[in-house]
Amino acid sequence: MIDFTLHPRLAADSHYVADLSLCQVRLNDDARYPWLVLIPRRAEIREVYELSAEDQATLWQEATEVGRRLMTHHDGDKLNLATLGNQVAQLHLHVIIRHQGDAAWPGPVWGQGTPQPYDDATLDTHLMTLRDLLASSE
Amino acid sequence: MIDFTLHPRLAADSHYVADLSLCQVRLNDDARYPWLVLIPRRAEIREVYELSAEDQATLWQEATEVGRRLMTHHDGDKLNLATLGNQVAQLHLHVIIRHQGDAAWPGPVWGQGTPQPYDDATLDTHLMTLRDLLASSE
Repeated sequence: MIDFTLHPRLAADSHYVADLSLCQVRLNDDARYPWLVLIPRRAEIREVYELSAEDQATLWQEATEVGRRLMTHHDGDKLNLATLGNQVAQLHLHVIIRHQGDAAWPGPVWGQGTPQPYDDATLDTHLMTLRDLLASSE
Repeated sequence: MIDFTLHPRLAADSHYVADLSLCQVRLNDDARYPWLVLIPRRAEIREVYELSAEDQATLWQEATEVGRRLMTHHDGDKLNLATLGNQVAQLHLHVIIRHQGDAAWPGPVWGQGTPQPYDDATLDTHLMTLRDLLASSE
């Protein structure tokens, strides 16, 4: 059995937040948007339908619940959920909070402008806030 | 109770294919990509988490199954599933088959170049093929 391994590009572009039942949750290192990435901790999965039916359902539940909490926390205007994977094939699902007037609004966020990495102090605070948000029994 | 009504922009940009248990399936009028749009037939829904838990699960099942069938039919390289809705807020989920070297590869398809509407003969044939594909008991 092959263990789950995070793709090096996902590891380089994001920060570990927490493990949910199925997914590892990571913060995309781009302070322009509240942007999490969920990666099912299963080996060698590229497409949603390669997961078991149970895992497919769990992935979607985790993504929508994370999205709902982030929308409230950030007072978002629109939730974007997407699994593309054209550049990094390992299955990962983007959860992005959009605000009217944000750097890419109303277009999609990918490939627009230059990512703004978090500074260390902001990052630490933000990661703690996110862990509280995901762990709450709300 | 308010009935489901398709947003006029979704209606203008796509062609009716079929109704699944929850979603209306439409073909996006852009022959550059195999690109379907699934719209839950529920009134006044903007975000996935506004659907009932059962409808959320059905939406995902329908999207992944449509995606799986299209991937096989078109011999796709990557499946893109996304709900953005920044421009048309009515909840809709994109199911897009990507091929290496397609018009936007490896970027996302939105906002790239100019859509290529289907010509009438191609459209009729394609809609029939899609209806067969979605109706098969495969």
